[in-house]
Amino acid sequence: MSSYCLATYRSFDEKADYHKKATGIAVGLTVGSWTDLPEAQKASMEKHLGKVVAVEVHEPAPGEPASSRYADITIAYPDVNFSRDIPALLVTVFGKLSMDGKIKLIDLAFSADFLAGFPGPKFGMQGVRDLLGVYDRPLLMSIFKSVVGYELPALREQFYLQAAGGVDLIKDDEILFENPLTPIEKRIAICLEAAEQAKKETHQKLLYATNLTGPTSKLASQAKKAVAEGANALLFNVLSYGFDVLHELSADPEINIPIMAHPAMAGAMYPSPHYGISASVLLGKLMRLAGADLVLFPSPYGSVVMPKEENLAIKHVLLTQDLHKDYTYQVPADVKLKLATSFPVPSAGIHPGLVPLILRDFGHDVIVNAGGGVHGHPMGTIAGGRAFRQAIDATLQGHLLREYAQTHPELQSAIDTWGIKE
Amino acid sequence: MSSYCLATYRSFDEKADYHKKATGIAVGLTVGSWTDLPEAQKASMEKHLGKVVAVEVHEPAPGEPASSRYADITIAYPDVNFSRDIPALLVTVFGKLSMDGKIKLIDLAFSADFLAGFPGPKFGMQGVRDLLGVYDRPLLMSIFKSVVGYELPALREQFYLQAAGGVDLIKDDEILFENPLTPIEKRIAICLEAAEQAKKETHQKLLYATNLTGPTSKLASQAKKAVAEGANALLFNVLSYGFDVLHELSADPEINIPIMAHPAMAGAMYPSPHYGISASVLLGKLMRLAGADLVLFPSPYGSVVMPKEENLAIKHVLLTQDLHKDYTYQVPADVKLKLATSFPVPSAGIHPGLVPLILRDFGHDVIVNAGGGVHGHPMGTIAGGRAFRQAIDATLQGHLLREYAQTHPELQSAIDTWGIKE
Repeated sequence: MSSYCLATYRSFDEKADYHKKATGIAVGLTVGSWTDLPEAQKASMEKHLGKVVAVEVHEPAPGEPASSRYADITIAYPDVNFSRDIPALLVTVFGKLSMDGKIKLIDLAFSADFLAGFPGPKFGMQGVRDLLGVYDRPLLMSIFKSVVGYELPALREQFYLQAAGGVDLIKDDEILFENPLTPIEKRIAICLEAAEQAKKETHQKLLYATNLTGPTSKLASQAKKAVAEGANALLFNVLSYGFDVLHELSADPEINIPIMAHPAMAGAMYPSPHYGISASVLLGKLMRLAGADLVLFPSPYGSVVMPKEENLAIKHVLLTQDLHKDYTYQVPADVKLKLATSFPVPSAGIHPGLVPLILRDFGHDVIVNAGGGVHGHPMGTIAGGRAFRQAIDATLQGHLLREYAQTHPELQSAIDTWGIKE
Repeated sequence: MSSYCLATYRSFDEKADYHKKATGIAVGLTVGSWTDLPEAQKASMEKHLGKVVAVEVHEPAPGEPASSRYADITIAYPDVNFSRDIPALLVTVFGKLSMDGKIKLIDLAFSADFLAGFPGPKFGMQGVRDLLGVYDRPLLMSIFKSVVGYELPALREQFYLQAAGGVDLIKDDEILFENPLTPIEKRIAICLEAAEQAKKETHQKLLYATNLTGPTSKLASQAKKAVAEGANALLFNVLSYGFDVLHELSADPEINIPIMAHPAMAGAMYPSPHYGISASVLLGKLMRLAGADLVLFPSPYGSVVMPKEENLAIKHVLLTQDLHKDYTYQVPADVKLKLATSFPVPSAGIHPGLVPLILRDFGHDVIVNAGGGVHGHPMGTIAGGRAFRQAIDATLQGHLLREYAQTHPELQSAIDTWGIKE
């Protein structure tokens, strides 16, 4: 029995016969031609033939322009046609097709057979909580403010101030590459030292995600070097290297620390309504499939904006959705279908006054992630971290920030600076 | 003295102060903050600071909507900030920025220092001509028609028919992955055998680009296995793996055969006017920088359409443009700045009646590439190849296709089928 992976496209065309178009895709991206095949050959080719699963045409409502006509088309691609890796899947379902007019890849679903090639996140949301020993609240992460051109002592100082404020995770800036001022092994050493110092005051654990960079073929050894130096997390610019690189790093048993996926370059692909790949696929399904333990994406609140529905779709995919959907296939009972979940990290423009909103939108299994909202606090970076922790505590305990701030000066100062958005 | 790579963006905003925006990019994507730095620190940070090179604001003409207001902004990024690899460059210049509203990366220029890390195409246009011994005409390439689900004898037959028609290059379908029916080593063996058979009749050489697929970490060894099996060219889905993977494969001295870059997935990034990366950067500059010897891209003629200006911009970048531009930097005399050129292969929807147009648009240093235009010929695949060669000969000799066809039945039949576009 054949099994299939599913791809759903949104195709914009004022006049297309979408059912014909769907058949064209199903045939063209698999066996190439069908109706002119001899009958005898059809029997042997049938298992390689793509199938049209659904065609939902959306005609423009009265008053809407003809250009708003679109259809959502779902095609089933036989697993037998491609190898068990993301490049093969993407080239099959959206290689040539990506260049064929106004068409966007809006969803993917994976067969049990395909999923079996992907161990998924090694730690995931639960594993990250286990490492930190924090289960009862959203986590707090902060980002270095400025790092390019800075020397180790300045980096250490920044790290310490963030850690002392009570954050759970600190990540490198994604534009910090290997450089003579702060090479990875020295960065890890001084940051972990600063973390130890802060721990004496905060009594809490901390993960530092150091940026994994360099030539593709050296990334695995670079990651292992980081592990050997004591690194407890990695930051990785997945889209500039490719999903398969993340998949291989994540599946490597020697790289036994969480990997945090950065969305750098994602904006080249998800924002257009007509082209590219939807955010929930690009930063959701494919990141989790490839094994990202934590995934950063633009929040709907701040300076780098993504619509809230797209944000919640990413969260849904990372945290709860079963990535698996079978089409005409009976899943054997012993096949593991559930990948570990990935921790969602909505980012950019976050300040303490947004915490109630973030928790309302994302629930407790979210990482509140701030840069300027920590470093830009009028009372300093330590106070910046504390203000966030206070905002989280207040929200979890059901207090209004405004009230809680009356006895928490750091939070009060943050609110005075950035306001509250409820 | 610092050297810089340049990035040019097209930013759409109805109201932005674009000069302020440019400064924000130059500072934000390099040192992070500038005006609030102590003067003493500015001295040491100056060499890490991005510079605004140009801001060209295009106000809407009378009658144009406010949404058409845009600016082209060029920023110089100090090389000292990033390592000598494409992921580091792209994450720096278009990582976070890609997600910051309507903004498209429309150009890149590389410093001598950065370019020094890239040997460029190993063969390039000239090297491919040398391998084939053909200097006096455009080359002809054809693509397998249907391959998924086919067995070796069927593949061999298709290959032979294409080769016998006089094509210079044959490429695998990009959706042919490792599979039990036609594994790479067997594919190479039977295709080269078919090429030998055809050569007895055509007396010409032929390159067969076999599709390099599989896990990223195994690609180099897979390529070397292909070389050992006698492969004389590789096809590679660059964008599904990342430019750095192409760069490493191309720079590997043991992979001593041309690499043909396929544009699969490119449509997720170049077609939107507001988002993504322009085709001339994505399929032009970055492909050549990463070492592609031949580059396929959608032609402006056929079924998969790209505007002609974009096509000619890709051609210009691949064939003639110096990718180097220095900003405040004196290039040492011994630095090699010229990378080999990459052979342009405009593809999709090509039939013999388009050859005069292709040669007029692209000149002689182009590869005429056809799939359906070869296989769909009414007199068969061999005649399909011949019709193309006749169209090329006619055009080079200054004949009208219509006249030349009177004594060349294959061309006549092609014209009867697909017409002539002049």
